[in-house]
Amino acid sequence: MITLEPLDKLIDVLVHLPGVGRRSAERMALRLARDTRGLIPELVAALQAVSSQVKACARCGHLTLRTEDPCRLCTDPRRENNVLCVVEDPSDILLIERSGAFRGRYHALMGKISPMKGEGAIPPRMAPLMRRVEQEHIREVILALNSDVESDATAAFIQQALAAQKVRITRLALGIPAGSAIAYADALTLTRSIQGRNVLQDR
Amino acid sequence: MITLEPLDKLIDVLVHLPGVGRRSAERMALRLARDTRGLIPELVAALQAVSSQVKACARCGHLTLRTEDPCRLCTDPRRENNVLCVVEDPSDILLIERSGAFRGRYHALMGKISPMKGEGAIPPRMAPLMRRVEQEHIREVILALNSDVESDATAAFIQQALAAQKVRITRLALGIPAGSAIAYADALTLTRSIQGRNVLQDR
Repeated sequence: MITLEPLDKLIDVLVHLPGVGRRSAERMALRLARDTRGLIPELVAALQAVSSQVKACARCGHLTLRTEDPCRLCTDPRRENNVLCVVEDPSDILLIERSGAFRGRYHALMGKISPMKGEGAIPPRMAPLMRRVEQEHIREVILALNSDVESDATAAFIQQALAAQKVRITRLALGIPAGSAIAYADALTLTRSIQGRNVLQDR
Repeated sequence: MITLEPLDKLIDVLVHLPGVGRRSAERMALRLARDTRGLIPELVAALQAVSSQVKACARCGHLTLRTEDPCRLCTDPRRENNVLCVVEDPSDILLIERSGAFRGRYHALMGKISPMKGEGAIPPRMAPLMRRVEQEHIREVILALNSDVESDATAAFIQQALAAQKVRITRLALGIPAGSAIAYADALTLTRSIQGRNVLQDR
């Protein structure tokens, strides 16, 4: 509807970004086009820097500098070597790092299994996961996956693939969000939190 | 928290876009950094095209191609010449054009008056508006402004500035949104819709 070809083209590219719909892309494009403080050159420079300096870590799949591969999380000597946290997406690694609750190594699958799409839909970094578990003598694989049908299928696939290996496999607890109330939990969440209840006293 | 300098820099730039918070900027940056289908070069090219080909129309303030100044809306011979629709932002022009309800000329103020900030905060394109009303023999100025304190101040300012000129000044009707119900309207909206009620039969 904006009939300026360069603006329409920019909008078409912006809608490919996560969480950006047509209307927000329009607002962004208009702001960028109107900006007089050099926002476009700044954004272009930042994009080109990411493009030339950032890559996926060959070992864990997390983003890293081209000059640091494997990444800092993979090489940090203060982290545990034999516990592997499996995530779907590198952004999950950031969230877990923020929690500070995990000090082992990571493996990003870059996707999950879509039961509807069949065998072809196994994430490309599934095979490297199997190799790593063996080569790095992993004691525990923590599946830090989401809670949906595809993530469940992914968990089941990994469990099956590792069935012959001597490795502990765990998955994140499901339950009531911290700071939230039972009243806000749906039936499935409540069921899972009852099934996974913690013992406070046992006598 | 992402400790890769190029990614952090990209996030810092992205948060300047309208409607983009820290978390969405992170998601966008990660998607861009991970992308293998050439999204970054495409975005860079689109940004550079906008930067080199798009400018603000010298007459109305709307965005236009450098090769088309004044813009198509200003030069379209099928549009009325003596009715001027005043908006705060060029994006408002797009919305009004979509409605198809207006066929005159536009003037974007590129801002509104902030009573809290005093005189210095008068939009830079306010003076050109006064000149246009006189030089283009405008019969009616339609204030297509928002409904908030700053827009009200802007409307009052324009009304005062044009008080000596023989020009009709109107402002968009306030009322219940089309397709909505009285039950959803706040008290002020309802008050305005009663004050601005339309006569259906008068006998």
